[in-house]
Amino acid sequence: MKINEERLLNRLYTLGKIGVNEEGKRTRLAADDAEKEGRDAVATWMMEAGLRVAVDKIGNLFGIWETEENKGKDPVMTGSHIDTVINAGQYDGCYGVLAGLEVIQSLKESGYKPARPMVVGAFTNEEGVRYSPDMLGSLVYAGGMTAKDACSIVGIDGTVLGEELKRIGYAGTEEPGFLTPSSFVELHIEQGPILDAEGISIGAVEDLQGISWQEITIEGSQNHAGTTPISYRRDAGVAAAKVITFMRERCLSSGGKTVSTTGCIAFEPNAINVIPSKAVFTVDVRNPNEDALKAEEKALADYLKELEKTDGVTVSTKRLSRFEPVLFSEKIVEKVEKSASAHGYSCRRITSGAGQDAQNLALMCPTAMIFIPSINGISHNPEEFSREEDLLNGANVLLDVLSELTEE
Amino acid sequence: MKINEERLLNRLYTLGKIGVNEEGKRTRLAADDAEKEGRDAVATWMMEAGLRVAVDKIGNLFGIWETEENKGKDPVMTGSHIDTVINAGQYDGCYGVLAGLEVIQSLKESGYKPARPMVVGAFTNEEGVRYSPDMLGSLVYAGGMTAKDACSIVGIDGTVLGEELKRIGYAGTEEPGFLTPSSFVELHIEQGPILDAEGISIGAVEDLQGISWQEITIEGSQNHAGTTPISYRRDAGVAAAKVITFMRERCLSSGGKTVSTTGCIAFEPNAINVIPSKAVFTVDVRNPNEDALKAEEKALADYLKELEKTDGVTVSTKRLSRFEPVLFSEKIVEKVEKSASAHGYSCRRITSGAGQDAQNLALMCPTAMIFIPSINGISHNPEEFSREEDLLNGANVLLDVLSELTEE
Repeated sequence: MKINEERLLNRLYTLGKIGVNEEGKRTRLAADDAEKEGRDAVATWMMEAGLRVAVDKIGNLFGIWETEENKGKDPVMTGSHIDTVINAGQYDGCYGVLAGLEVIQSLKESGYKPARPMVVGAFTNEEGVRYSPDMLGSLVYAGGMTAKDACSIVGIDGTVLGEELKRIGYAGTEEPGFLTPSSFVELHIEQGPILDAEGISIGAVEDLQGISWQEITIEGSQNHAGTTPISYRRDAGVAAAKVITFMRERCLSSGGKTVSTTGCIAFEPNAINVIPSKAVFTVDVRNPNEDALKAEEKALADYLKELEKTDGVTVSTKRLSRFEPVLFSEKIVEKVEKSASAHGYSCRRITSGAGQDAQNLALMCPTAMIFIPSINGISHNPEEFSREEDLLNGANVLLDVLSELTEE
Repeated sequence: MKINEERLLNRLYTLGKIGVNEEGKRTRLAADDAEKEGRDAVATWMMEAGLRVAVDKIGNLFGIWETEENKGKDPVMTGSHIDTVINAGQYDGCYGVLAGLEVIQSLKESGYKPARPMVVGAFTNEEGVRYSPDMLGSLVYAGGMTAKDACSIVGIDGTVLGEELKRIGYAGTEEPGFLTPSSFVELHIEQGPILDAEGISIGAVEDLQGISWQEITIEGSQNHAGTTPISYRRDAGVAAAKVITFMRERCLSSGGKTVSTTGCIAFEPNAINVIPSKAVFTVDVRNPNEDALKAEEKALADYLKELEKTDGVTVSTKRLSRFEPVLFSEKIVEKVEKSASAHGYSCRRITSGAGQDAQNLALMCPTAMIFIPSINGISHNPEEFSREEDLLNGANVLLDVLSELTEE
């Protein structure tokens, strides 16, 4: 059994054109006008495929294929998201939604009789650009937040999510979690360089890194850059630089398991001849093992304490975000490997470095993910690219895994 | 022979009130309305003292005491500046101008007959906040730039310096350098912590650090903070942090001679979960010895080259400013020490960490400086403070040194 390759690619490129501005930049933020247009396209394709379209109270959009025979059974679910970052690529999220739809439509058209209903979902506000936190629709679906609380979140543009959903016609009536999936599989581009660099077609995603986000504020003394001897300095900028290099050392000694990133930094007063009195910066640490992630957090906390003594600074930290690592279903991961092998696709186990809707669905049911290569690992960027061959291979593996899961 | 202590302090505090806004913040930028008011006050006091007031084409303001007997001889000169940074203290610069005026006025009132004319100057745009470069008036006076070029400099507020000088009535007619000083002595607050920390009253400033300012741009690759293994990263932010810690190590191994400061930094795109593609930051390195300063610049350049290999980044540098160190007149430094000793003031030799008008005058004639303690080394800050006792001691030393120099 095979998917309709042309239809999948056409839909992917059609959706990719929605939300592209005059400068050629693609942006569909959760519940904005461009994302409404994207939702309308996906809902139309769901209906064309003969699926029942349902929307829940947080705007998650589902296409449901239920037969007389399997009605009432817990469905096998797949899906991802169609909201984007600002100036995005066309694959992130959309590929998983449209490949999921294609798999269900192909199975339906082939006369296949699934023992369970099959559902494809597009979850609201995965990127978290307009409303915080990210992966919000799947979080609410899995019961991690009430729809009421989520709908009252105020966005970076001052809008309220619930009102925006109403405005674009996607404030649904279903209770989040109204369908209890028997299993969930999300197909996604890797968004990292490993599969591409190793020339491997399919990533069988066995786990998802835990994420620890902190904002660190170091306070020292503002002084003249020329007249203050080093021994008198309490330089918040030097202390910040030490933290960044310390965390890099931790990564290097972790055997490739820990990644740490300082993406944001600001010095005060930020003048060339003034010793910084304040440095504010972020530390994003990830590791697929919870104990190891906790150990990194402790090492950082200990180092900050030491800095207060060695550098005469004052350090405070603010927790911005924390997700425990997720271990995906070994049973489903094995099905991914089996399908790749049957097709003759190269395959390796891999960790998801990014947060995904699947991590929330994993709270409800056995869950796993399938990755395909991102060329040069580029993502959240208009240069994000995946080869058509890989896109189609991934969809074929998804078809195998989903149809097997309906039989359990 | 002694100065009029009350008059000096009164003038200092009166000038300190000029340019204070509703919030209590003191700002007199070169040739703005508040600085005009300050100039008017100083010019009035010069005239009260019986000095001839002269203004040159770059707005440097001079009070000249010439007698029938010493007319035509090269004068002994002192002075500093009365422009300030934004939200400044009241001592920086103003103390040197007003103490110089006080010394000349006291000598004149005492019936002293100097063998040379005595001059006190207030040089234009020393701070360099409104117009770049700093120490501009003394630079032009010493022949380092033409008045015409300097007057056409456009400020941060879009104004043209020459037009502003005209507007406030201080575009003079004298050619800069119209008086050739036989020697120059500048009295100034230390703006650093050494004298205060060591409990010493007088700093005999024997040299002035060379200053090397560069802006460094490191370019790496923008990538996802979660999905990009450390070995694939080209992290501009980590590379910047390594440079900052490297320069701190250089300072520590220089035996206290080198100071290096990174005061400004910015990452792009400056997002918490994105590896910085670009880091732009400044490096301000100072050392009182030119060979040593060059060695620091070379060590930095070598390290940046190494970083391109080890971190896979691209580095470019932009020279922002470069001053060679200045060695002051040993003869005048000894006079400072002798006077301090005669008064029973503790005294040590010291290096000026900051740039000063005296470094430009040193191009014209034997020059030195006298420092008094800045409490906690605080300067360029409303909390800048020097004790009255120290202010008066410094003026007494200046009186001794200037009067001795008139006799040479």
